[in-house]
Amino acid sequence: MTTPVDLLIEARWIIPVEPDNTTLEHHAIAIRDGRIVAILPTAEARTLYAATETIHLPEHIITPGLVNLHCHAAMTIMRGLADDLPLMRWLQEAIWPTESRHASHAFVRDGSLLAAAEMLRGGITSCNDMYFFPEATAEAFDRLGLRAVLGITVIEFPSQYASDADDYLHKGLATLDAWRDHPLIRFSLAPHAPYTVSNKTFERIGALADELELPIHIHLHETAGETTDSLRDFGLRPITRLDELGLLGPNLIGVHAVHLAPEDIERLALHQCAIAHCPTSNMKLASGAAPTTALLERGLAVGLGSDGAASNNRLDLFREMHQASLLAKLSTGDASALPARQALRMATLEGARALGLDTEIGSLLPGKAADLCAIRVDDPDSLPCFQPTSHLVYVLDRRAVSDVWVGGQQRVKDGELLQISNTELLSIARVWQNRLRQ
Amino acid sequence: MTTPVDLLIEARWIIPVEPDNTTLEHHAIAIRDGRIVAILPTAEARTLYAATETIHLPEHIITPGLVNLHCHAAMTIMRGLADDLPLMRWLQEAIWPTESRHASHAFVRDGSLLAAAEMLRGGITSCNDMYFFPEATAEAFDRLGLRAVLGITVIEFPSQYASDADDYLHKGLATLDAWRDHPLIRFSLAPHAPYTVSNKTFERIGALADELELPIHIHLHETAGETTDSLRDFGLRPITRLDELGLLGPNLIGVHAVHLAPEDIERLALHQCAIAHCPTSNMKLASGAAPTTALLERGLAVGLGSDGAASNNRLDLFREMHQASLLAKLSTGDASALPARQALRMATLEGARALGLDTEIGSLLPGKAADLCAIRVDDPDSLPCFQPTSHLVYVLDRRAVSDVWVGGQQRVKDGELLQISNTELLSIARVWQNRLRQ
Repeated sequence: MTTPVDLLIEARWIIPVEPDNTTLEHHAIAIRDGRIVAILPTAEARTLYAATETIHLPEHIITPGLVNLHCHAAMTIMRGLADDLPLMRWLQEAIWPTESRHASHAFVRDGSLLAAAEMLRGGITSCNDMYFFPEATAEAFDRLGLRAVLGITVIEFPSQYASDADDYLHKGLATLDAWRDHPLIRFSLAPHAPYTVSNKTFERIGALADELELPIHIHLHETAGETTDSLRDFGLRPITRLDELGLLGPNLIGVHAVHLAPEDIERLALHQCAIAHCPTSNMKLASGAAPTTALLERGLAVGLGSDGAASNNRLDLFREMHQASLLAKLSTGDASALPARQALRMATLEGARALGLDTEIGSLLPGKAADLCAIRVDDPDSLPCFQPTSHLVYVLDRRAVSDVWVGGQQRVKDGELLQISNTELLSIARVWQNRLRQ
Repeated sequence: MTTPVDLLIEARWIIPVEPDNTTLEHHAIAIRDGRIVAILPTAEARTLYAATETIHLPEHIITPGLVNLHCHAAMTIMRGLADDLPLMRWLQEAIWPTESRHASHAFVRDGSLLAAAEMLRGGITSCNDMYFFPEATAEAFDRLGLRAVLGITVIEFPSQYASDADDYLHKGLATLDAWRDHPLIRFSLAPHAPYTVSNKTFERIGALADELELPIHIHLHETAGETTDSLRDFGLRPITRLDELGLLGPNLIGVHAVHLAPEDIERLALHQCAIAHCPTSNMKLASGAAPTTALLERGLAVGLGSDGAASNNRLDLFREMHQASLLAKLSTGDASALPARQALRMATLEGARALGLDTEIGSLLPGKAADLCAIRVDDPDSLPCFQPTSHLVYVLDRRAVSDVWVGGQQRVKDGELLQISNTELLSIARVWQNRLRQ
């Protein structure tokens, strides 16, 4: 008697992330209705399951799909528009003027299509995003089949999208309503940063987050100046201010968290906040090195984020895993800090935990959604391979990603996207490149 | 009247590195007898030159071939053998036992073949190497057509290769004699490090370097402990000791140079020493951040090195360019530090200068050897592209390298090596992986 399943994927190695520090060799994943039914030795799987489709990945590693815990997808259109500039000049001379001239529903939809394509091809199956026009990002992500948490962005300044904090919230909540029943798309409240959002708005966001059970996604302690300014303007460090406003909690995802005093770490730990660590962005903008190992030791969920392509300049969690590990080793002076196993866990399960989605995604356990990333290990440029997890983090890159599934649906096959053609993507990129150049 | 040339390469963009900060659009490179004859607008080139072969690269950037200023090619066989360990445990528990069991002519030849293949496919056309059995590395590099400076490694300890310092020198000099007339392969003297080589041996090396006009390639000030130990054992900092022994000079390439006091930088600058900066290796082994911007400001030739694959874990100068720039921004707190233009210059002309080969390679000037790297810019994952040099460093990676020439001879075509098959490389990697596993 065999049990019918939709899909059986047989792989050389499977790294399920849970249980920790486990690499299964010659195992298979059985999938039905978009969920993992079982992971077991391939020989056994063949006798137990009758699969509609069987896929053999004889020289591959399978991991959970990667979770990009901080992104501004639409900014992909501004990739590399102004490199090698300090944060404020970068914002004031390049990003803000471009946004005020070009940001629109079409800009965000097209930028999000490029971003979703880049992320899926690179093994990212979930994205925690923050930008204007979230309905346009929803449209793009839905088309390409990327799982996402989209920020209802709130900032006190007017933009092409909305006029004031109330208007941002109003529009964002209408988008949430419109997409309420989508299987892959959820929402968060995304107050931009402590320095761009008022106490009154934060209080409203806190109440809404409780009422609607939404995560809060916010830039936090990115630069040293942010704390100095907050002390001047509010008499409080930004994290203390958010604490007093009642915003800290397990549903808060603080992005960057570079400049933290011991008391900041205490507060974040006390409230079990989550952190989106963006090592490439923090290095490129010279923001500093977040104390990731200290945060992880306190048990906080610390996931990895690419930030936007305008600063990073890639939406690439392979790069972030590598960089997170190297930056932790450098900043602690300890070569054993943040080992490969932990970097992979941050890029998967920790990101899922931060989003409150760890019962659904982030590791390969029966019952969870089949969000999977398959990586080839047979390119002579990357051999020999002595330890698959370590190989993933220190040797391989996103170009080795061969196949990707979201909820059991294949999105990438042999390195090619199934939902959109390269021709269309190239055409989108070129149109916007020409517009922005003018 | 047209002038006959062997090869005309027409490209969308050419970044010649010299003159600085120049990007030529729709230009062509004319090549005869392995050397650059001219670089000029494509339309003009078509009327002036009659080429035996014309290559169109309509969506590509051409740069000088990259110069890997510090490598242990043969160690590619030990790629990822022991990650996440501090330097001394990594050496004592993994690298040295493996070397003492396996190092041989065959090990070095095979490891160097894998390394040369990886480097050429990644746009590296010159490699400054240091390892035992340099004759085996010469054999491998000659076969694949990689330009190289091979170290005559000297260390006071016996190995599978030689018994003592005299024996290392004797064997190395015999190899130099045997390869004296090779067009692409040269030699250096490579005393391993101040802490593994005696004063007597350094004096002999200094005399030989003068007599034979050879560069000196040496690990220098990699860790803080190295200086402490040197003060204890010799009463001098390592750089001061080398200075007193007469070894500092424009022909000395100090590798790593992480822990430098102001007086060390003064001495290096006074003697116009060159530096091989290895950012990935320095971060992964938690050695620290070399003061690259200070060294560059003093006018030192600072090139980029991958170090060996056992520590890095890739021989990838795209990764090193990216990392050098990010690490400099992080360690200086200045987002404009070490801009893309400078990172590319370090990976090409500065490396050539360090090797004393800057009249021959490192930039695209008429008369120089045609060592070239062509990179595709038409993958939707990496668009749009607003500034080619910045795009090279922050967005693209070695997988975008399409074509590579060394001395006008094509080594890589459309991403594939011309001198060796993937089948042979895979077979080499697998044989050694199995041996080392036992």
